[in-house]
Amino acid sequence: MKCKLCKKEARINLRSYNLKLCNACFIEFFKKRVRETTEKFKMCSLKDVICLAASGGKDSFALWDVLHKLGYETSGLFIDLGIDGYSRLCREKVVAFSQKTNLPLKIVDIKDELGYSIREVARRANKVPCSICGMVKRYIMNRETGAFDCLATGHTLDDEASVALGNILQWQTGYLERQYPVLQENQSLKKKIKPFTFTFEKEIKLYAQIAEIEYVKEKCPFSANATSLLYKKAFDILEERMPHIKLSFYKKLVKKRFFIPEEEVKLRPCRRCGYLTVDEVCNFCKLKEKLSSSSGSR
Amino acid sequence: MKCKLCKKEARINLRSYNLKLCNACFIEFFKKRVRETTEKFKMCSLKDVICLAASGGKDSFALWDVLHKLGYETSGLFIDLGIDGYSRLCREKVVAFSQKTNLPLKIVDIKDELGYSIREVARRANKVPCSICGMVKRYIMNRETGAFDCLATGHTLDDEASVALGNILQWQTGYLERQYPVLQENQSLKKKIKPFTFTFEKEIKLYAQIAEIEYVKEKCPFSANATSLLYKKAFDILEERMPHIKLSFYKKLVKKRFFIPEEEVKLRPCRRCGYLTVDEVCNFCKLKEKLSSSSGSR
Repeated sequence: MKCKLCKKEARINLRSYNLKLCNACFIEFFKKRVRETTEKFKMCSLKDVICLAASGGKDSFALWDVLHKLGYETSGLFIDLGIDGYSRLCREKVVAFSQKTNLPLKIVDIKDELGYSIREVARRANKVPCSICGMVKRYIMNRETGAFDCLATGHTLDDEASVALGNILQWQTGYLERQYPVLQENQSLKKKIKPFTFTFEKEIKLYAQIAEIEYVKEKCPFSANATSLLYKKAFDILEERMPHIKLSFYKKLVKKRFFIPEEEVKLRPCRRCGYLTVDEVCNFCKLKEKLSSSSGSR
Repeated sequence: MKCKLCKKEARINLRSYNLKLCNACFIEFFKKRVRETTEKFKMCSLKDVICLAASGGKDSFALWDVLHKLGYETSGLFIDLGIDGYSRLCREKVVAFSQKTNLPLKIVDIKDELGYSIREVARRANKVPCSICGMVKRYIMNRETGAFDCLATGHTLDDEASVALGNILQWQTGYLERQYPVLQENQSLKKKIKPFTFTFEKEIKLYAQIAEIEYVKEKCPFSANATSLLYKKAFDILEERMPHIKLSFYKKLVKKRFFIPEEEVKLRPCRRCGYLTVDEVCNFCKLKEKLSSSSGSR
C-alpha cells in the first residue's frame, strides 16, 4: 500500500480515518493533530511552562516527547506510589527519559507524603486502592503545578470516550464536564490540559515505537478489575466494526457540549492546607489524619 | 439454592436482581412485572382490544401469552415478508400459536401488498433489506391497528437499552423519545405500547421455556450484520460484570426523560394514502410507485 501523503510505501493503516501512511508522514500527522488540539482549545502557548504528569507508560512519555518537539517548555512530575516492583520500574523509566532528553523532572514519593505505600494507605484507610490513589494523585499534581502555567496529562481519546460512556450509562451527566479537553483554572485548582483527547491509544503506541521511546508495558497491578477497562473493551467492540464511532462520539460531545449540569457544588478552601474542597477539611488532609491516628495499629 | 419467595428449591438465579426463584414464583414475578409496566405507563386497560405484532420469535409470543393470561383482549398481526424459508417457518409457528390459544390472527402478505418478497423489493428499490423492512412493517402495522386501541410490540429491555446506547453514541438524541415505553397516538399514528421494556430477554426466554411456547429460534437471515446486535453485544459485556447496569441505565433514561429534542419535524397526511409523513407522499407509497415502474425490469 502507498502513503496517502508522499506516495512512498506505507506501513501504517489508520482505519478510523481510512488513511494509509508511511512512518515519517505518520509522525508529522501525529504531531499536527496534537498541535491543532492545543491551539483549538487554547491549552497553552509557547511562552508557558507546562508541568507534565509522567507515569512511565506510553501515553505520558509520548505526550512529553511530542510537546517538547513542538517547542513547548515542559517539566516532568512523577509520583512514586510505592506499588511493589511496578512503581520502581516506572520510576526508573521516567528518570531515564528525563536524562536522555535532558528535561527537568520532579519526583514526589508517597511514602514521604503519607508514611506508607498506596497499598498500605488503602488498607489503613479501609478503601479500594484505586479510589485513594486517584484522590492522592490529583491532590499532589495540583499542588506541584503551583509554579507552572498548567498541568498536562496523557489522557487519550480512548480514555475520555470510555469514561464519558460510563458516566452516561450511569447518567452521572454532571461528571461529563471533566471529559472536556481542557479544564480551566478555578481558584487554587490549576488549569489542566489533555492534548491527546483526539488521539487514539493505538496511534500513541505507534508513535512511541517509531520515536523509540522506552516505556513500561505492564499495567498497574491494581487496574486488572477496573471498570474503566471494561468500558474501553465495550467501546473497542463497536469501534472494530464501526471505525470512527469513538472519535465522532467524543467530537460531538465536545462540540455540542452535552454537559447536563447537576446541582452546583460550592467549593471552599480546606481549613488545613487551602486546597479547594466541598467540606471544611479536604480528603487528603482527612486521610493524613486517619493515617497518623492509625500509625500504632498493625 | 432456595426460592426467595416460597423457600422451595430454586432453579432460576436472576443476577440483575440478585434474586433466586423457583419456576412457579418466577412466572408470577414475570407476570407482575408486565402488569406493573402496563399500569404504570397507562398502556392499556382491560376494556381495550390490543393488536399484537407477532413475529414468530420468543418475545412477541411471550408477550401475547402473558397479556392474554393477564386478562387483556388481544388479536395477533403477522406480516409475511417472504424471506425464503424463514418467513414460512415464522408463519407456521404464529398460526399454530393462534390455533392452540384460540386467539384471533390476521396475516398480511407483503407479496399481496407490493408484489414481491422483501428481498426483491429491496433489490428493486436499491436499498438494504433492513431499512426497507422497518419502514414497510411500521406502515402496515399502523394501518392494521386502525380498528384497535393500541399496537403492542415485544421490544425488550435489551432492545430499548441498546438502541438508546447507539443513538447516544451517535448523538441522535432526538430519536431517544422512541425508546419510551409507550408512544402516544398522534393523528393517524396509533398508540404503541411496549410492555416488555423493563424485562430482560433472558427472562423472556425462561418464560417461554416454562410456559412451553414453541417459537422460531433462528434469527432473520438479514440480521447477521445488524449494528443493533453489536450494541447489544457491547452492553452484554458490561452487564456481565455489572449486573443491573442495563436496567438502571434504561430506568433513569425513562425517569429523567433525557430526551433532548432536535428540530421539530412537522408531519402531514400523505397525498395518496393519508399516512402521516414529512413529505407530500409517504415512503410506502413512493416505494409502491418505484416498484410498479420497475416491474418490467429484471
